[in-house]
Amino acid sequence: MATIDKVSPLAPKGGFPDLPAVGGVRFSTVEAGVRYKGRPDVMLAAIDAGATMAGVFTRSLTRAAPVLWCEDALARLHRDGPESADKGFAIVVNSGNANAFTGAHGRKGVEATAAAAAEALDLPASHVFLSSTGVIGEPLPAEKITARMGDLAAALSGDAIEPAARAIMTTDTYPKGSGETLSLGGTDVRITGIAKGSGMIAPDMATMLVYIFTDAAVAAPLLQEMLRDLTDRSFNCITVDSDTSTSDTLLLAATGASGMDPITRSDDPRAPHFKAALGRVMLDLAHQVVRDGEGATKFVEIDVTGAASDAEAHQVGMAIANSPLVKTAIAGEDPNWGRIVMAVGKSGAEADRDRLTIRFGDLLVAEKGWVAESYREEDGAAIMREDEITIRVDLGIADGHATVWTCDLTHAYISINADYRS
Amino acid sequence: MATIDKVSPLAPKGGFPDLPAVGGVRFSTVEAGVRYKGRPDVMLAAIDAGATMAGVFTRSLTRAAPVLWCEDALARLHRDGPESADKGFAIVVNSGNANAFTGAHGRKGVEATAAAAAEALDLPASHVFLSSTGVIGEPLPAEKITARMGDLAAALSGDAIEPAARAIMTTDTYPKGSGETLSLGGTDVRITGIAKGSGMIAPDMATMLVYIFTDAAVAAPLLQEMLRDLTDRSFNCITVDSDTSTSDTLLLAATGASGMDPITRSDDPRAPHFKAALGRVMLDLAHQVVRDGEGATKFVEIDVTGAASDAEAHQVGMAIANSPLVKTAIAGEDPNWGRIVMAVGKSGAEADRDRLTIRFGDLLVAEKGWVAESYREEDGAAIMREDEITIRVDLGIADGHATVWTCDLTHAYISINADYRS
Repeated sequence: MATIDKVSPLAPKGGFPDLPAVGGVRFSTVEAGVRYKGRPDVMLAAIDAGATMAGVFTRSLTRAAPVLWCEDALARLHRDGPESADKGFAIVVNSGNANAFTGAHGRKGVEATAAAAAEALDLPASHVFLSSTGVIGEPLPAEKITARMGDLAAALSGDAIEPAARAIMTTDTYPKGSGETLSLGGTDVRITGIAKGSGMIAPDMATMLVYIFTDAAVAAPLLQEMLRDLTDRSFNCITVDSDTSTSDTLLLAATGASGMDPITRSDDPRAPHFKAALGRVMLDLAHQVVRDGEGATKFVEIDVTGAASDAEAHQVGMAIANSPLVKTAIAGEDPNWGRIVMAVGKSGAEADRDRLTIRFGDLLVAEKGWVAESYREEDGAAIMREDEITIRVDLGIADGHATVWTCDLTHAYISINADYRS
Repeated sequence: MATIDKVSPLAPKGGFPDLPAVGGVRFSTVEAGVRYKGRPDVMLAAIDAGATMAGVFTRSLTRAAPVLWCEDALARLHRDGPESADKGFAIVVNSGNANAFTGAHGRKGVEATAAAAAEALDLPASHVFLSSTGVIGEPLPAEKITARMGDLAAALSGDAIEPAARAIMTTDTYPKGSGETLSLGGTDVRITGIAKGSGMIAPDMATMLVYIFTDAAVAAPLLQEMLRDLTDRSFNCITVDSDTSTSDTLLLAATGASGMDPITRSDDPRAPHFKAALGRVMLDLAHQVVRDGEGATKFVEIDVTGAASDAEAHQVGMAIANSPLVKTAIAGEDPNWGRIVMAVGKSGAEADRDRLTIRFGDLLVAEKGWVAESYREEDGAAIMREDEITIRVDLGIADGHATVWTCDLTHAYISINADYRS
């Protein structure tokens, strides 16, 4: 395994943020030795009765056993409606092994882990959510996890969110957290979240996992709708290497512990405020994942306007963000805008060479089918030397708009991924 | 610019092949100093009257000025039909500058170059085909090319195909050629072709260019139909880095100099023989391009069977071939089949985890949703140490089949592309 000994140069300054404690949620971690030695590799989150849950999962057709389990569990909860709130929930996550493409053995590991957590916390097994992140195709030693479930349950604490964020890391170079406190109709409400992810946001080891908690009270269908919509504007707008994980999981628990009256409809005046705050936390976590992209040295925002539709703008943004040639040029601090033209051309979205405008930050680079008269290479090069770069592309066709985020493609990415399992 | 001083370890043994001379075609090259110094960088091919032409071009929406010119010229030829055969044709190619995204200036460079070749060879300008390969967005110094057109015309020779293959190289580490002689209805017929391409098949400098010549006599519509069909099974099945060039061009000239009666219909018994030979030459050139992929150390064939359709098989093959995680694992000689599972899952094609079978060469690796009982990691590792690797994926759904070819993703790719223009 590649040794990841240096924190990404793009890590947020100041380390792990001071997150507000969310009532109704407690965390614990243990060193179970699933694969890594000498570090916590399993986390348990316990959520009190009365919470609502929402989640989104990878759309991969080769999704991992714990993802299939979570999809089933969430579908059953949403079908059963409020009566499921009589009992609490648990989230169990291990790092080091993805329990993906492990056939019937994988399913048994999931069932055993869920049963152990259910017993330790007096829950139905269907109220236990599971994630595994690490190597694909190796059998999960579930017994190492179930053996420690009693210890995990005994150690639960409302303050242990940072250790939880650390326990789920694989090639990540720093733990990722984000949170906010807002006032909704006079009640203070907290949102906190943790995430992991580094190689893609989809290598076979990395995988993106996100867990968000709030003491707001929000009905499950509305919570799910908000989560899905915000995912399309945050986590679905980032890419490290274009590879999609078999295990991506995002779970959101709303405990209601703030004591507020539940939000049940989207026309509740508090709903947009809550959604905006949730969106900020999600976007912050998404950016932290990109900033920890394997081998990343540059954080790149790609802002596409003037497309035939928002969907086509997203398509163009992703074509640029996933182009190895654009990403290596950025790694080399080369203002090689020709490669952006190339990526626009191959994206499949409607485009017209002669209506295309490209800017680095506010610097006009190319327009009307050629380099801008005012452009000087040294100005472009100066922008490329920054840690954070914004590329603006206007297609000049209609009003479609999208923003996506990525990082550069460096030698370190090759080193991490060519040596990973060896 | 990165210095490319070592020939790819995957280059065909024995150097440039001994190609049969095709009657009716002559070549010449000069050092015009478009960008490179001290090496030929412009080639001229002159094709005698009576030939038919076919061509396929990049589908990029930001295609380069010479590509737009060639598309127009070819469309006009095919519209005018046989009467266009009264005059010959010319192909002029420069390396070092792609004349792409260069606006009105780019168009003027194309017109000036075509006019100069037309005058030197007594042709209509619309019978001159042009390609440019190199950096995008810099003005093409067409005057450097037009100034040497008289020298080019004076030096034409039927034997100069290897220098022509060298003149069109950019990041290529060796010149690429392929040829065949076959008997059609008692007449000996020759096919020769040259190609360039290395980074993608689509970086801003590389670009894939292919020129094929035959002394067979084939009517233009049939020639075009064969070329399009064979392109889908050769050049459209290779990828180095998933980036699509603004300049990809493939031109085919059939001079008729062999003296055979023309083939005008696809039910002519000679047509399938000619098409098969043409297909072999095209596939050989396509493989040579992959073998010279930027930084490549492994030549990888990906054979997908059992898909819902041939198109979905191609989609799965390309998802595997373009996955940075699969390509870096291959670079690291790591039999990391989990990443192949991941790529199948993200491809968008119909797939079922539990019906998927993966083989490295003939070695069964995974089946029925998990690693095969008989699989031993050291056997997989031994195959990964080879220079040439075949990955077989059977989806177990229906009969769709496709084969694609790619190379690994190495540190050298990053070095070449992060430093290219600097």
